Parts: sequence; structure tokens; C-alpha cells
Amino acid sequence: MNNLLEGKKGIIFGALNEMSIAWKVAEKAYEQGAEFVLTNTPVSMRLGEIDELAAKCNTIVVPADATSVKDIENLFAVTMEKFGGKIDFVLHSIGMSLNVRKKRPYDDIDYDYLHKTLDISAISFHKVMQVAKKMDAVNEWGSIVALSYIAAQRTLFEYNDMADAKATLESIARSFGYIYGREKHIRVNTISQSPTLTTAGSGVKGINGLMDFTERMSPLGNATAEECANYCITLFSDLTRKVTMQNLYHDGGFSSMGMSERAMHQYNKSFDECECDKID
Amino acid sequence: MNNLLEGKKGIIFGALNEMSIAWKVAEKAYEQGAEFVLTNTPVSMRLGEIDELAAKCNTIVVPADATSVKDIENLFAVTMEKFGGKIDFVLHSIGMSLNVRKKRPYDDIDYDYLHKTLDISAISFHKVMQVAKKMDAVNEWGSIVALSYIAAQRTLFEYNDMADAKATLESIARSFGYIYGREKHIRVNTISQSPTLTTAGSGVKGINGLMDFTERMSPLGNATAEECANYCITLFSDLTRKVTMQNLYHDGGFSSMGMSERAMHQYNKSFDECECDKID
Amino acid sequence: MNNLLEGKKGIIFGALNEMSIAWKVAEKAYEQGAEFVLTNTPVSMRLGEIDELAAKCNTIVVPADATSVKDIENLFAVTMEKFGGKIDFVLHSIGMSLNVRKKRPYDDIDYDYLHKTLDISAISFHKVMQVAKKMDAVNEWGSIVALSYIAAQRTLFEYNDMADAKATLESIARSFGYIYGREKHIRVNTISQSPTLTTAGSGVKGINGLMDFTERMSPLGNATAEECANYCITLFSDLTRKVTMQNLYHDGGFSSMGMSERAMHQYNKSFDECECDKID
Amino acid sequence: MNNLLEGKKGIIFGALNEMSIAWKVAEKAYEQGAEFVLTNTPVSMRLGEIDELAAKCNTIVVPADATSVKDIENLFAVTMEKFGGKIDFVLHSIGMSLNVRKKRPYDDIDYDYLHKTLDISAISFHKVMQVAKKMDAVNEWGSIVALSYIAAQRTLFEYNDMADAKATLESIARSFGYIYGREKHIRVNTISQSPTLTTAGSGVKGINGLMDFTERMSPLGNATAEECANYCITLFSDLTRKVTMQNLYHDGGFSSMGMSERAMHQYNKSFDECECDKID
Repeated sequence: MNNLLEGKKGIIFGALNEMSIAWKVAEKAYEQGAEFVLTNTPVSMRLGEIDELAAKCNTIVVPADATSVKDIENLFAVTMEKFGGKIDFVLHSIGMSLNVRKKRPYDDIDYDYLHKTLDISAISFHKVMQVAKKMDAVNEWGSIVALSYIAAQRTLFEYNDMADAKATLESIARSFGYIYGREKHIRVNTISQSPTLTTAGSGVKGINGLMDFTERMSPLGNATAEECANYCITLFSDLTRKVTMQNLYHDGGFSSMGMSERAMHQYNKSFDECECDKID
Repeated sequence: MNNLLEGKKGIIFGALNEMSIAWKVAEKAYEQGAEFVLTNTPVSMRLGEIDELAAKCNTIVVPADATSVKDIENLFAVTMEKFGGKIDFVLHSIGMSLNVRKKRPYDDIDYDYLHKTLDISAISFHKVMQVAKKMDAVNEWGSIVALSYIAAQRTLFEYNDMADAKATLESIARSFGYIYGREKHIRVNTISQSPTLTTAGSGVKGINGLMDFTERMSPLGNATAEECANYCITLFSDLTRKVTMQNLYHDGGFSSMGMSERAMHQYNKSFDECECDKID
Repeated sequence: MNNLLEGKKGIIFGALNEMSIAWKVAEKAYEQGAEFVLTNTPVSMRLGEIDELAAKCNTIVVPADATSVKDIENLFAVTMEKFGGKIDFVLHSIGMSLNVRKKRPYDDIDYDYLHKTLDISAISFHKVMQVAKKMDAVNEWGSIVALSYIAAQRTLFEYNDMADAKATLESIARSFGYIYGREKHIRVNTISQSPTLTTAGSGVKGINGLMDFTERMSPLGNATAEECANYCITLFSDLTRKVTMQNLYHDGGFSSMGMSERAMHQYNKSFDECECDKID
Repeated sequence: MNNLLEGKKGIIFGALNEMSIAWKVAEKAYEQGAEFVLTNTPVSMRLGEIDELAAKCNTIVVPADATSVKDIENLFAVTMEKFGGKIDFVLHSIGMSLNVRKKRPYDDIDYDYLHKTLDISAISFHKVMQVAKKMDAVNEWGSIVALSYIAAQRTLFEYNDMADAKATLESIARSFGYIYGREKHIRVNTISQSPTLTTAGSGVKGINGLMDFTERMSPLGNATAEECANYCITLFSDLTRKVTMQNLYHDGGFSSMGMSERAMHQYNKSFDECECDKID
């Protein structure tokens, strides 16, 4: 390994199990010499295997509901105490929609659920940064990354109000990135990742057909969770200090494709008649 | 006039006084042969002169808080009764932030206020469409427009959480536009308008300096409220039936400018020394 | 009709036959009260039926190769003489690639052909505007439109160097739009149209499968040539005076879609096995 | 250093002197363990100090005019011979406009010069990749980067036809990136860098005022050539394998800013009257 993050400290939100992107980020960051605290909601901690990850990375887990300013304050306090000072990076990998879970179609959503979707999946990112800034918890030239999805720009059926949440998340990255940049030289970016078969991702209906399509559309194929983790490492490193307020596609080229030969070829097969049908 | 909207019915949200874009849209729509109902919150109705506008346009005002599903349902019921059937267009021109009003800086915002900002300025747009669709209140090939601002893409200091609200609004336009389009052939777009000296606009701190800058940056100068109203007419007309899920810049070219000669010339003057200073 | 273009004069490039978008624009512009001159290359004039169109629209055809500054100068001179003064609008609907025609794959293109592709499909637009401006041939608040395609932003297999030509075309629209805007208040925009079955469009390999896909992806379906013509009318009218330097998608929503239910459903059929296959 | 490019070979176009971004990339790549060949036109080689750089990086300089397919073929042949095999990365940092040099305004450009601008600044990138692919000169998962500028999206006065060249360049990156990705897993991206005081950059009229403006607009300030080189390293490394067909802003946040407090403050000073003026 390259010790790209040697001496750097951080906080990683959202590792549930080894399919999680946040899990892979933790592993890669550890390999690259970083120290960090892991965090997730108490519920997710029970469901997942985050303690295993903590053991592997020689660190602790601090439970926190990312919609709770109080919990976030406690998380930063514990983290800063553990490291004896400020941190250098944060990963935000958090998203949940009750409208999706309860199968409310987008033209019949529940507005309390929508506020929750926004609170959990987008506003939590603002809360993390507002708390961090007030507590002066991040070193100059630190790096903050949230995971997003192309649904923020282009509508995908069934993705529901998570699309609006991701658009809000990316806006918060820009809005806070401006403030955090001018005052503390801290950069804030989002990574717009390929659809990924995490526990969260597999909850999205029809994800398999979609992933086949995006795999064939993307010249390099879908990006995996592990590859996403590698990309995060570059954004946490000192080599990307002037990249901020950006939404960065990490998707094998999907976002810049209109139609690939492979996807068109597969699509056209859908019109093939069965030989037996033809005989009839 | 061209009778571009002859036979069309609509609802116009957000006319406060004659500086309002919605006010100008009402005037232009009336000139073009449309019939419509005006609506605003009870508070805005008291502060403004919307009754004058209603008289001029030979119509009624139906009070409605656009965050209240019940109020919106009533508005559509009254409107459909008045016109004896469905409508063809909706203008959403609504935005408000308590964080802006109470001068909470973006790194010290109140999260209840943020939820209100999103509810009033963005989610209300979803509510209008969800109610309209459930009540089957809009004719096939109808047109729905909301007013937005470039802060949804690029950060402007002091614009605060309204930037996030506009990003959410534009996302809702896409997300609901997909559903409304595939099921009812109804199109949904946002217009991203130049900064405009409406009552709402003049509340934004430093708006004058900004408007001077955008005036000099934009090859055609800032777009006025009246010009914006003309543009809305084209989007309500049958000539734009296949334009949907778009954010359309109506800004004299500002959004496509990196730097104009006029703005650079003015900026460079800021470095001029006084002659008297030089003498000293 | 609405007499939206009453009193306006123009030049329309690129009408070949009644499938052409430019042909439809001519018909619609005529209905809306405009007068204009038609133009195309001598070769296209022989292949097509432009004289019929001229008769229908009570006008003349002036042959011009849009890559020839001399021809364009003559075209504007004849036009201004015919109308006794300046014009108000121009439609540029021109594109051709020898690399496409000669089936040179994009990783084995001929560079002389590429220069020709750019000259015919993009630089011709600059030439038209540079000549027009030097001859002071367009009235204040005139409107210039070129037709583009989403390949300028997203790669489509087989579209070849026409993608680069469209990207260049859209850049020229911005670059010249700035100059023409600040000096003459003339606006310059491109329309990014759905794939359309014109004579030119049908030359693109695999256009049928692609058009089926875009039809199912777009909530409003593909936009037709006639609908595109209607949209052009709004851009030539006085109702869109402050829209400039924009690339405007006229595509039934395609550009803002990530995946639609209809397209996904069709795509997934491609994996169905034949019943008879299963029996075997 | 982190040995991020250990074992990797490459070709770096465009190092003129130590102000050049390509020069800094060479230095950083060398520090990170890469081996590479330097190249520039014979003229630039005479004007610059590239031999010094070659000595420092323990390598050779192979002259090549990047508009000449023959020269590029020779360059790759010599390079592959030197390294005994394929390479892993290419940097394209090439741009020149005779219209800019000869001070032809954008509404009076010479079209032969325009073709040269496109040939040198954009099509050369296609030529490099087409030759490389035909010679099978790049390893699987290789990385190709070209330097671009925001003028590709937003017009800057005096940037002239270089804006169109950059738009074409970015399109070529996408178009070829699709082909190179699907067939060889090679990624192709452009970096959109802050205005930079290189020898090329300082030729752009009014660059100083512009750089002051972008410095104050960008929350992190303008990105330097050295920082750009660091960013290039991440794109050449194996940590960014699924990033392709992207235009990546490396600009301190400028591209996502509408207006910063610092820039507005400076702009507003331009309206200050002199005290002595006021007294009179």
C-alpha cells in the first residue's frame, strides 16, 4: 500500500456489513494508514456486523443517529478525545426512504415520510458539517465526502423520493462546501456511484434488470463497492486538495453514455420472436 | 395579442403585487385568452393587492396555504367547479426561508426552519401535483411550471437554504414530470429566472450588487418579470408539448457566461486608486 | 393560427423534403405570418423537393453551400434585397459526416473527413453568423436557432464524429451568442431534438432500435419533426427574448431520464426464454 | 512519496518550461515511481527547457507535432521500444489558436486558423488515441488525460475559438473513451483546470483580472499547476479505474459558484467614489 492517508484521522458513517461501500472504505483507509471511528445507528449496529469491522481496523464504534444533532456532537466529542485532536476526513454513506420501504408510489407519497427521507438522507449531511464546524473538529484542508446517485439528475422509476433526497444532498454539499472552503479550506464533494448491490441497494425494486442495463451501457462496466472505496481514498488524500463542491461520477462511464452497442444489442433481442412462435 | 392560450384554464400561485412574476403571468395569460384562478396564502392576500389583479383579469382569488394538502384540494375543487371541468396549466411561484428572514447563517441554520423552507418552497410543488393528479384535475397535454433560480446549481452567498430548496424543487419537477408525463401527457418544467426585483427578491441581502453584476455578465441583460411572464406563456401554449422535465434558463445568457467584457471592466475598476490618493 | 411571427423575415437552411425538420419549420413559420427565404446546397436541391415547399410558402430558394462564405454572403444579399431590409430569424439545420457515410469507425476515422464534418455541421453555423453580423443583416432582438442532438453530451455508438460536430456547434452557439447578444441583442440557441426519422436521421445505423428505446424512455414519447417546428416558432417569436446561449432539449423528457418503467420492461423481455426452448 | 505510479510507463505531451502543468506532472509522476517519455513540437523544444526536465526525470525527449499522425506513430514506436512494451498513461496538454495570437476577434475569425486551432488543440487528442489503439500501445486499465478549461461550458470574452476547441476536446474524450473503454478498459478524462499562469495562459488577454476574480470566487482559491499535477497522479493511479468519459473540475470550487462574498465585495468597490471627488 501507498500510505496515502498516513497520519490522517476520520469518521466513517454507514458501514452495515461487508457489502457496504462504507465498509470497503474503512478497509481501504486502514490499509492506507488512516485511523478512524466507525459510526452507525443503534438499529443498524444490531443488524450488521460493524463490530467485526472495528476489530479488523483496530478502532471503536460510536453509535449515532445522524438526524440527531446531539448524537453527532457526542460522536465528534468522543472521536476528538480518542485522537487527541481534530480529524481530516468524513464519509457520509446514509440513505433511507420510508416511502420506498412502504411501497408508496411517488404520486401517492406520505409527506411525513418525505420529510424523514430528506432528514435521514440529506439534511443529516448538513448536520454533520454544521456540528463539525461549530466544534472546529476538522483540520484545514480536510475532506468530506457523501455518496450519491445519478437519480439526482435523471429520473429512475421506483427510486421515488430518494431522487429528491440525493438532489438535496448534492446541493448541501455545494452550499456548505462554499462556507467550509472559504473559512477552513475544507473540501466537500459527492461521489455519484454506479448502482451497487449493497443491502440498501438491493431493496430498490428491479435493481437486477437495471444493473444489467447499466453494466452493458458503461464502457468499463459498473463500479463495485471496492472500487468506490479506492476512489474515496484519492479524495481523502492530499492529492485532490483543490477539488470541491463537485459531484463526481464513479460509474464506468454510464453518465456520459447515450446508448452503447452492447445495451442496444440486448434491448433489440427483446423483439425477437421465438422460433416456435414463428412456426405457429 | 395572439390568443395563444385561448380556451385554456389554469391556476396561478404566488401573485402578491405588481412586482410579482406571478402577477405578470396572470396579466399576460389573460391577454392571451386564458381563464384562471388566482391563489395565495391568507397572509399574502392581506399584504398584497391580489384583489385588484383578480378584478383586472375578471376572476376570483381562492386562498390556500400551499403546504396544506387540504387547502390545495379545496382550491382545485373550487377551480374545477368554476370552470366546469379540468384545467390546463399551473404556475408555482412560491418560496420562503425563515433562516434567511431570521438571518441565520448557513452554518448555523435552524433545522425546523429548514424543513419549513423545503416544505413551502419545494414540497408544496409536489403537493400541488399529487393533489391535481389524484383529483384528475389537469387535461392531457397540460403544462405545469415552477419558478427556480440558478442557486440550485451554483452557490451564491447569502442565498442560504433557499439554494437547497430550489435544487429539491427542480428534482421534484423531474420526478413528478416522469409520472405525470407517462400517465397523462402532462409536462412539468422549471424556469430558472434572472434575479428579479420582486418583493421576495428584494429581501435577499446584497441583491443590488448582484443584479448589477448579472446585468453586466448577461449579454442580453437581466430578464425582467414581464419577460419571464412571456416565456411562461410559451410553456403553457401547445407549441411546447414535448418539452418536459427541464430546467430552462431565462436569464439573458447569464448561465452560459464565464466572464463578460463589461463585468470584467467594472470589476477591474475596483482596483483603481483615487487620483488624490496617488498625489498623497 | 396566432400570427406569432407576423412581420418577421427569415432564412431557413436545410429543407430537403417533407420529412425534414426545416421543411416543417417553413410550413409553421408561414402559417404564423412569417416571410422567409429557403436555402440548401445545389446537390440537396436536386435530390429534394424544396421548390414545392417554396411554392407553398410563396417564396424563393437561394442555393448556397453553407461552408462557403461567398455563397452565404450572396444568400444574405439576395434575401435583404427581396425583403428590402434586415431579417429576424435564421434556422440552421445542417449536418453531414463522410466518416458516417463511408462507414469509418470512430477509432479509424479519416481526418480530412473529420474536418469536413466539422466544417459542414458546425463551422457553417459560425460562418452564417459572422457573415450576417458583418453585413448587419439581422434586426435587434432577432433569433438564431440551430438543431442539435444529445450526442453532444452523451455518447451513442455509431453516431461517430457527428457527436463532436454537435458539441462544437453548441459551443459556437454560446461563443457567438455572447457577442451577438451584447452588441445587437440577438439571441442564439440550439434545440436538442429527439432522434427523428428524417432522410438524414434514417442514415444513422440502428436508428430504429434506438428510436424504440427513446420512445419508451421518454415520458411523452419522441418529439416529432412537426412538434420541433412548433418549438422553433416560440424561439423565433418575441416571447422568448431573454433566452440565449442555451441548448434546449425538445425530447419528450428523454434527457432527464435514467430509466423508465416501459423501457426497463422491454429490456427485461430480452432475457425471456422461449416457451419451446424451455420445453426442450 | 507513495509510489502510486510504481511500474507505470507513460507519455507526457506539452512540457515547455517549469511553469507548464505538463512539467509539474512529469516531476510528480517521476516522484511517484513512473517512467515516461517527454514530447513536444520541435519549435517548443527550442523555446523551452524540456531537456533539463528530461535530465531531471532520467528520460528522453521525442519531438513530435501532435497534428501529425506520422510523428505520433514514431513517438509511440520509440516509446514502446524504450520501455520494451506498452504504456499505462498519457497526458495531453496542448492548445494553440492563431486567431488568439493574431488578435482576430471572434466575430471576424479566419477559418483556416479555426481549423488549425481545432487540429492542434482538439483533434490531436483523437490522433494520439487512434494511433495508440491501432498500435495497441496502452495496457488494459490504462489512463489518458487531457487538460481543458471551463470555457468549454461558459463563454469568457477574449478566449475566442479556444472555447470551441475545448468543447471539441471534451467531446472527443467522451467519444473515444467509450470505444477505448469497452474494448481495452482504458479510461479517458479531461481535467478542467483553474486559469493558470503558464506561458500559454499568460497569452490570454486580461488574464490577471480574471485570475483575481476566480481567486476570490473560488472558496479554495485558484488551483496551481502543481496541484493540478497531483490530481493527474490520482487519475493515472489504479485508484480511479472506473472514472471515465468525465470532465473533472479542478478549480477550487469555481465551477459551482454563482457569487462569493469576497468577489462581490471587491466588485462593489468599483462603485466607490474617491473622497476627493466627493469634496469637489
